[in-house]
Amino acid sequence: METHERSFDKELADLKKRLLTMAAIAESMIDQAIAELVNRDKQAAAEVPRNEEQLNRLQIEIDDEVLRLLATRQPVANDLRLLLSVTRINSELERIGDLTINITENVQILVERPPLKPLIDIPHMAQLARTMVRQSLDALVQGNAELAQAVIMADDQVDALKDQVLRELLTYMLGDMRTIERALALILISRHLERIADHATNIAQDVIYLIQGRDVRHPRTPRTPAPT
Amino acid sequence: METHERSFDKELADLKKRLLTMAAIAESMIDQAIAELVNRDKQAAAEVPRNEEQLNRLQIEIDDEVLRLLATRQPVANDLRLLLSVTRINSELERIGDLTINITENVQILVERPPLKPLIDIPHMAQLARTMVRQSLDALVQGNAELAQAVIMADDQVDALKDQVLRELLTYMLGDMRTIERALALILISRHLERIADHATNIAQDVIYLIQGRDVRHPRTPRTPAPT
Repeated sequence: METHERSFDKELADLKKRLLTMAAIAESMIDQAIAELVNRDKQAAAEVPRNEEQLNRLQIEIDDEVLRLLATRQPVANDLRLLLSVTRINSELERIGDLTINITENVQILVERPPLKPLIDIPHMAQLARTMVRQSLDALVQGNAELAQAVIMADDQVDALKDQVLRELLTYMLGDMRTIERALALILISRHLERIADHATNIAQDVIYLIQGRDVRHPRTPRTPAPT
Repeated sequence: METHERSFDKELADLKKRLLTMAAIAESMIDQAIAELVNRDKQAAAEVPRNEEQLNRLQIEIDDEVLRLLATRQPVANDLRLLLSVTRINSELERIGDLTINITENVQILVERPPLKPLIDIPHMAQLARTMVRQSLDALVQGNAELAQAVIMADDQVDALKDQVLRELLTYMLGDMRTIERALALILISRHLERIADHATNIAQDVIYLIQGRDVRHPRTPRTPAPT
């Protein structure tokens, strides 16, 4: 019986390790997409679609493994909650990958044309979002609720940056209509980054739920003003 | 033993019924948000925030019930897959509710100002998205894979409308800069509707997986061109 339990623990640890692999891939996808934008280097994001396929594969593998463990181990209490969280975190990470693809599609529009302005807030948003992804997974592996809480707090910063990007780019659009298409592409990129941060926040909320057994999904921070 | 099983069947049927309730709430939220936009009636969407709270409550209740059933019934095979799907569909529906809130926030900007243009594509997108939500849940309850497949096909139509809305509104923005803010709000509304359709598609893919035991999440339709 003890070896059975020990090997179940090993299986659970292995699942967490696979989630870490997914997170590392998602982080590098964010980097690659934004590097192409900032450095105006069309090759920088060449790996993004291949990485997305890998994320998709890992997602299916992890879900299959969760299903297998639920059926064969018939876990209860904490182990059961962990397995359910793994499938949710899994799907959050896969969606982060999808969003980086959306970012690269908008970046294509921008690298074809002269830069609109020096980019400051968008790389900052990307850096914050990337750190949130990393920290939400670290919080899971370390069982660290404070780190998860820090991720949730950082989301407000990303939302504020998103609003700032919108206001600034609206000024560009209103001042010179030749900037409209590029400004719109940048606005959409900022929104994709904001959604990546939202997914990291969802992961962090799941981690807190796991650790403290309380559901923090809905008594959320107040909504930011429109447009959203 | 037979009564035990019969009562588990009843519990599973009850879970599906609760998902139907969530879907009906989400559908009416889409209606209310778009009615406010189309009829320029500020009261039309007054119920949306209350409905969202109800969705949030239902989501937590359903997840708790799934957890309880996993622990007490220790289901395998199809029942196990159904329970996991219920938690995923649950969270898709809750996100649809969040997106209708985002829509109402953009609608606020629009009802304060003269209409930019007669609205055709956006109400059409809303109607499609609403139908997709309804049909994805009907497909679950009826075990109807063809209906689920129809939902997945409809998603391409919504994506095409989203691109059409973008092109048309870009023309407005480029032609008259006084339209920029309103055009941007409409673009963002079309994107929120497109994401609602994506969530319905995720539900439909889950339903097909449940019925046919194959994973249709990733060999998806080709991506639409940028910007996304």
